[in-house]
Amino acid sequence: MTSQSNTTTATKTFITERLAKLRDVLAKQHITALIVPTADPHLSEYLPEYWQGRQWLSGFTGSAATLVVTQDFAGLWADSRYWVQAADELSGSGIELQKLAAGNPNHITWLADNLASGDSVAIDGDVLALSEKEKLEAAFAKKGIILDISRDILADVWEGRAVLPSAAIFAHDGKFLDTTAKEKLAKVRSEMAKIGASHHLLSSLDDIAWLTNLRGADVDYNPVFLAHLLISNDDATLFVDDVKISDEIKNSLAKSGINIADYQNVKSALAKLQANDVLLLDPNKVAAGTVASIAGEVEILEQMAPSTLLKSVKSPADIDNIREAMRQDGAALCEFFAKFEAKLADGEPLSELDVDQMLIEARSRQPNYISPSFATIAGFNENGALPHYRATPEKYSQLDTKIGGLLLIDSGAQYQNGTTDITRVVGVGAVNEAQKRDFTLVLKAHIALARAHFPDGIASPLIDAICRAPLWQEQLDFGHGTGHGVGYFLNVHEGPQVIAFGATTPKERAMKAGMLTSNEPGLYREGKWGIRIENLVVNMPVANPTETDFGKFLQFETVTYCPIDTRLIDKSRLTQIEIDWLNDYHQLVFEQLNSRVDGAALAWLTARTQAI
Amino acid sequence: MTSQSNTTTATKTFITERLAKLRDVLAKQHITALIVPTADPHLSEYLPEYWQGRQWLSGFTGSAATLVVTQDFAGLWADSRYWVQAADELSGSGIELQKLAAGNPNHITWLADNLASGDSVAIDGDVLALSEKEKLEAAFAKKGIILDISRDILADVWEGRAVLPSAAIFAHDGKFLDTTAKEKLAKVRSEMAKIGASHHLLSSLDDIAWLTNLRGADVDYNPVFLAHLLISNDDATLFVDDVKISDEIKNSLAKSGINIADYQNVKSALAKLQANDVLLLDPNKVAAGTVASIAGEVEILEQMAPSTLLKSVKSPADIDNIREAMRQDGAALCEFFAKFEAKLADGEPLSELDVDQMLIEARSRQPNYISPSFATIAGFNENGALPHYRATPEKYSQLDTKIGGLLLIDSGAQYQNGTTDITRVVGVGAVNEAQKRDFTLVLKAHIALARAHFPDGIASPLIDAICRAPLWQEQLDFGHGTGHGVGYFLNVHEGPQVIAFGATTPKERAMKAGMLTSNEPGLYREGKWGIRIENLVVNMPVANPTETDFGKFLQFETVTYCPIDTRLIDKSRLTQIEIDWLNDYHQLVFEQLNSRVDGAALAWLTARTQAI
Repeated sequence: MTSQSNTTTATKTFITERLAKLRDVLAKQHITALIVPTADPHLSEYLPEYWQGRQWLSGFTGSAATLVVTQDFAGLWADSRYWVQAADELSGSGIELQKLAAGNPNHITWLADNLASGDSVAIDGDVLALSEKEKLEAAFAKKGIILDISRDILADVWEGRAVLPSAAIFAHDGKFLDTTAKEKLAKVRSEMAKIGASHHLLSSLDDIAWLTNLRGADVDYNPVFLAHLLISNDDATLFVDDVKISDEIKNSLAKSGINIADYQNVKSALAKLQANDVLLLDPNKVAAGTVASIAGEVEILEQMAPSTLLKSVKSPADIDNIREAMRQDGAALCEFFAKFEAKLADGEPLSELDVDQMLIEARSRQPNYISPSFATIAGFNENGALPHYRATPEKYSQLDTKIGGLLLIDSGAQYQNGTTDITRVVGVGAVNEAQKRDFTLVLKAHIALARAHFPDGIASPLIDAICRAPLWQEQLDFGHGTGHGVGYFLNVHEGPQVIAFGATTPKERAMKAGMLTSNEPGLYREGKWGIRIENLVVNMPVANPTETDFGKFLQFETVTYCPIDTRLIDKSRLTQIEIDWLNDYHQLVFEQLNSRVDGAALAWLTARTQAI
Repeated sequence: MTSQSNTTTATKTFITERLAKLRDVLAKQHITALIVPTADPHLSEYLPEYWQGRQWLSGFTGSAATLVVTQDFAGLWADSRYWVQAADELSGSGIELQKLAAGNPNHITWLADNLASGDSVAIDGDVLALSEKEKLEAAFAKKGIILDISRDILADVWEGRAVLPSAAIFAHDGKFLDTTAKEKLAKVRSEMAKIGASHHLLSSLDDIAWLTNLRGADVDYNPVFLAHLLISNDDATLFVDDVKISDEIKNSLAKSGINIADYQNVKSALAKLQANDVLLLDPNKVAAGTVASIAGEVEILEQMAPSTLLKSVKSPADIDNIREAMRQDGAALCEFFAKFEAKLADGEPLSELDVDQMLIEARSRQPNYISPSFATIAGFNENGALPHYRATPEKYSQLDTKIGGLLLIDSGAQYQNGTTDITRVVGVGAVNEAQKRDFTLVLKAHIALARAHFPDGIASPLIDAICRAPLWQEQLDFGHGTGHGVGYFLNVHEGPQVIAFGATTPKERAMKAGMLTSNEPGLYREGKWGIRIENLVVNMPVANPTETDFGKFLQFETVTYCPIDTRLIDKSRLTQIEIDWLNDYHQLVFEQLNSRVDGAALAWLTARTQAI
């Protein structure tokens, strides 16, 4: 998957009332402009409803955007993935869509250009990444604009605001773990020692869940819980709501040397740091408000948290477990597709929503299943052209075999033994030559990356061109990244690696053996159809090292096992190397799955894995 | 070409004496360590002998390295291109080769690690890029090490030091120009206005030559002259040795609104800048010593000079002239190769040095010829494995057809209508299968880049993976960049674009139509043979834009016209697409050159451009 949409649909008629009420508060408090980002104190991708103020105030349900409100202007900055959706959802609200793109002003430059010296801009410091605060300060200082991050203005406006979630925390099943929390803490402390950090603050929920070997359910899809973690050389404190933690978990944390304190107390604990302390934190993953109370004498080391890299590199045991999760997922998909195609052939009415339901049913029968790993994207024809489409009961399409076309299905699951994420495209009714050409070109891009070798340690964005080259050759491209890191029974989007040529190339993005990443090139014809072919791949040392003078090389092991629909392929556009790759892949898929399915699912698997 | 070696060979026995004398001076002046970089006040690639102190002091003749001398240590930091050569040239000198590579300490970290608080490090500020000074300061400040850039210590040690060159400056022939110096100055001032710069200092000689439409001969190969240029909104001053400038040039400069001042006076002119002045400069291209006299109140804008981008984008008229220069060069190469192969067939003894001589003879008969554009690299077998090899009268190889193998020839010329740079590999005697395999793999890499399409504006390092993928697939790689920008009758290495995945990816490196770049993948088997296939390519909009929804795309037009030796190809390793590219290329080469050569050269061209 490439990202997600949110479920709640704000009723548009409320938006103007909410904005009016907010403007009264801004006027009374002498605030010229309010920025409402899409963020929480953990800089998470999925926000508890309590922090979904941007959606509540704007009505835009997409997963990324920034709202700015002044007395005579309201604008929502969103990138190209959301332009169609935002234009639709904002219409009539008085909020202008501001297209975020190279060359266009972002909300920071817009504010710097449109406000005057002495004007003040408010943003809640608790949901503002430290790195973002630095950008705002730099832009505003030149213009004499005042930045006020001291409070949450929405608190005075938002009636009926949700409370924080309080789902129980549970232990990641020990049979899927080969490293204890205590050992992980020791590794982090070893990294802290290397750079001279006496303390380390983590606010990122995937890092905290990985480090403690605990999981939660405070948000959808990501099995995390709200917490901060402060680590020193001889102490570690987990700041978390006490009601979420059983005595058993408490005891196990104590054994790992981790104390518990209330979630709200992280600020007061940080205020106790002293002049000789050196605090390590990732400025992209810690909120300015969280650290606002730290004394000025404390030295702060701003860099990526050691756990971010440690958890991205899966152990051989992890990878074995992930392969098993992938076989489970593949078997569930065989069952789903067999049933789906049978219903379609029988003329049974099917909608995008039915796809979601059927997938969850099939997966939930598999062992160690926990939940979907993100909201299923099932987009028929023009809906598939929206990379982050989500069918809702209010708005979805029927799959019409008479019209014919392509259905894009991007889905995944959380199993205790691994997180899955897969996209397949299937034909519904007749598929035309233009659709087959596009499908085949995306497949060429997918194969180019899947079979690539690349130097150990290369910055991940630098290999994206290998994937995109076949599309570029035809003057085609797609507007999202080609690959994102994937957690181990954890977030479906995890860094530090990302295969996206637009991303920066710091040394932190070096490719290392054991990293799990998606391979998901796509192609989107606005208003027509969308294509994406996604497998997960693990960085492995090349299978047969033959050269020794040119450094070490990595290759991908594809660990997603599910047929790619060969009926959509224009074989004349494939090289023999590409045909060989596809046939080898389908043989692997058959070998991995045939003992796990039977009946119609086995028949479907057998048919769909035939060599071309 | 990928870089260059220097001609002067210091006699090793002198080195220890020179170091001893230097150490006396360091002791007297209480300097703990001296850094001698390979640099001049213009941060040029080719240094006048006056600034070749690193070579004089170390005996290492390579074109890039940094020497550090303390009382009990002397070390030379060089990258992998130079390890073999440096180990050889440094042996017996007492200077240790320090291998510059990822993970190894560079000279800055070495000094920071080995010196104590209060120790002082000297380096001549006049040959220290401002950006390098900032790096030294940052590393030394933490350790309490003092940086002294106030003087040139070598001045007290170096007897018989050369004086500065004083070659006459000449006008670039107007028939090859479509923009006057006055117009170029106006473009630069327009860019200065956009970013609020009142003044702009240029020390980089290619920028100054391009902007003034003048050329010089102060160093080998690059047709530049020593100068600085200070531009304000209503004034421009060229700081240059008066003896180099004729009255005619003086008058033409005056007409363009450019005054002349003595080369040495740039510092005093900069000292006159005042509090409200805003000075634009490129910290990588201006020396710390040059700007040391600037008052602290002057605001300095550090970014790439506007002329660096302006001159990288060739106009359609420039490109037409370049194509003609390439036809001239191609005709000269046909004559060279025909004669070379005939002599080889006749059993006439030939050495690497003869190749250089024969190439210069052939090229110098072409119109508008000025000089070689760099020192020819003609490397037989193991010498070809050194990417920056240069045969010298003291050390070179005979081309032995009985041994057999590969000869790598990297050469180029300066014509008033364009700068050329080409590498070809030819068989000498028998060529084995391993050599053919390597040649074919490099050819695959070359073709992959030559036929690639890529998004207009992509950072150039991001497309390198397209070129290297065929080599990486076989666990092979090469240690230099795939492509460098090339000037227009100017430097053979010019930025800002560089196709090298190890390079940074700032927006300044965006690919734009009109840029001229080399395409030169290689493969080097240490002690055995080296292969490189290099053509120059121009960024062009795709020939037939068919898609409109995915942005603009560029493709390369290959403008080097010279056969690639098909006798070295293992055709079974090429795809039909690659074979088609090669045959199309050879047809183009034949069409461009057949009317310009006759006799043996035409026969050679005809034979070598046959389709495979």
